[in-house]
Amino acid sequence: MNVLIVYAHPEPLSLNGALKDFAVQRLQAAGHVVQVSDLYAMEWNAVLGAAEIPERVHHRADILREQEKLLWADKVIFQFPLWWFSMPAIMKGWVERVYTYGFGYGVGEHSDVRWGDRYGEGTLAGKRAMLVVTAGGWQSHYGPRGINGAVDDLLFPIHHGILYYPGMEVLPPFLVYRTGCMDQQRFATICEELGQRLDTLAATPPIPFRRQNYGDYDIPAMTLKSELSPGVVGFKAHLQTDR
Amino acid sequence: MNVLIVYAHPEPLSLNGALKDFAVQRLQAAGHVVQVSDLYAMEWNAVLGAAEIPERVHHRADILREQEKLLWADKVIFQFPLWWFSMPAIMKGWVERVYTYGFGYGVGEHSDVRWGDRYGEGTLAGKRAMLVVTAGGWQSHYGPRGINGAVDDLLFPIHHGILYYPGMEVLPPFLVYRTGCMDQQRFATICEELGQRLDTLAATPPIPFRRQNYGDYDIPAMTLKSELSPGVVGFKAHLQTDR
Repeated sequence: MNVLIVYAHPEPLSLNGALKDFAVQRLQAAGHVVQVSDLYAMEWNAVLGAAEIPERVHHRADILREQEKLLWADKVIFQFPLWWFSMPAIMKGWVERVYTYGFGYGVGEHSDVRWGDRYGEGTLAGKRAMLVVTAGGWQSHYGPRGINGAVDDLLFPIHHGILYYPGMEVLPPFLVYRTGCMDQQRFATICEELGQRLDTLAATPPIPFRRQNYGDYDIPAMTLKSELSPGVVGFKAHLQTDR
Repeated sequence: MNVLIVYAHPEPLSLNGALKDFAVQRLQAAGHVVQVSDLYAMEWNAVLGAAEIPERVHHRADILREQEKLLWADKVIFQFPLWWFSMPAIMKGWVERVYTYGFGYGVGEHSDVRWGDRYGEGTLAGKRAMLVVTAGGWQSHYGPRGINGAVDDLLFPIHHGILYYPGMEVLPPFLVYRTGCMDQQRFATICEELGQRLDTLAATPPIPFRRQNYGDYDIPAMTLKSELSPGVVGFKAHLQTDR
C-alpha cells in the first residue's frame, strides 16, 4: 500500500526524527511505498495568504504536490510533537493551505437538506489516517482527569475536524509521553509498539465517529438527533456508541 | 488600561478587519491605550525553528517585541477566524515563538511536589484575556450536540492551554457565527454586542478554571483529586463548579 507521512519537527536528530525514520524503514520492509512530507526540511510555507482564500484561489505548485500525495496515499500518518496542546503551526498551515475549497472542504451539495460531503465522506474517503504524537508531560497529565485535559478530547479537533472531515477513517493515535525521559531500552520498546501499529494500519478498527449524512443528524441544524445518545453532550456525542 | 489585540486575518477588508477596527476605536474612545499585533500585516514568522528550541534559545527581536507587548498589557484580546476548529497557523506560530521557555512555560520550581507556575500562575498572572472568534458555520453546529463539537470544548485547548497556562484569567469568548450571512444591520448589532464586552473587560467574571497549585490536584500525577467533581472526566473537570 501507499503511505504518506506528514511530519513536523525542526530537529532531525530528535526523538521525532528517529521515530519517523523507524516508521519509514518498517513500512518499506513490509513492502509498502512511503512518501514523507518533512515540513521543516521542505521549508513549508505555513501561512495561508489572502491570494489563496476561496474567492480568488489559484493553487500554487507546493499545494498541488501535497494534494497529489494525499490522493496517492492509502494511509496517511501525521507525526508531530504536541505543542501547546495541538499540532505545530507549520503543520496547521499545511492543513490550511492543502485543504483548499473544493478539495478539503466545500465538496458536494450544500443546501438546507444536505451539508456537503464531509464527516465520513469527501475527497479523502476510503483512506485511513493515524496520528503519531509525542508529549513532554506524563500520561496521567493527559488522563481523564489530568490537568492538561484528556488527550482524546485535545485531539478531537484534529481527529474529527481535520482527518474525518474530508472523509478519512481515523485510527486511534499512537502516543509517546514524557519524552524528556528516554533511554535506549525505552526507545526500543516504543519502536516495537509503533511497529505493531504500523503493521496493522489496515486491520485496526477506526474511531467510530458518526457519519453526517446517514440519518444521525438533523439538517441544517447539524445537531445529533435527540433519540441518539440521549443527554450526551460534547465530543462524546459524535461516537457511535449505541449501535 | 493597556490593551493588546493579537489579530490574524489575511484580508483587511474582511469582517474580521472591520471588527478589529471597531474594537480599537471603542477601546480608545474609552480612554484605553491599544496596541495591535496584526500578524499578517507584520508578516509574522510562524515557524518555530530549531535554533529557537529551549536548549539553544537566543530570542530574536520580533519575539522580544511581542513579549514586551504582553508584559505591558492589562488585557489581551486574541481575534481570529476559526480555521479547522482552531486558530490560524500564523497565530499558533505566534504562541509557539513568543511563549519561550522561561516566559510562557518552564516558569517557577519544577519538582515532584510543585509543577511550575502555570495554570493560574506564571509570567502573565494578573492579566485578562478574551478570544474574539468568527466562524462560517451556524451556532447550532457548534452547540452541545452540534456536529462540529461544542465550541467551549473546541476552544478549551486555547483557553486553558494557551491563555490560562501562563497565568491569565480567561473571559468567556465573543463569538460570531455564520459569517457568510452578514448585512449592515447584523454587523451593527454585532458591534454593539462586542462593544459591551469591551466595555466590561475588567468586570466580566472569568471562566472559573481550577488553579494548579492550590490543592485541587495530586502532584506529580497532576490529576484532579478524587473528592472534587467526583466522576467528572474531560475538560469540565477543570472548572470550579463545586465551590
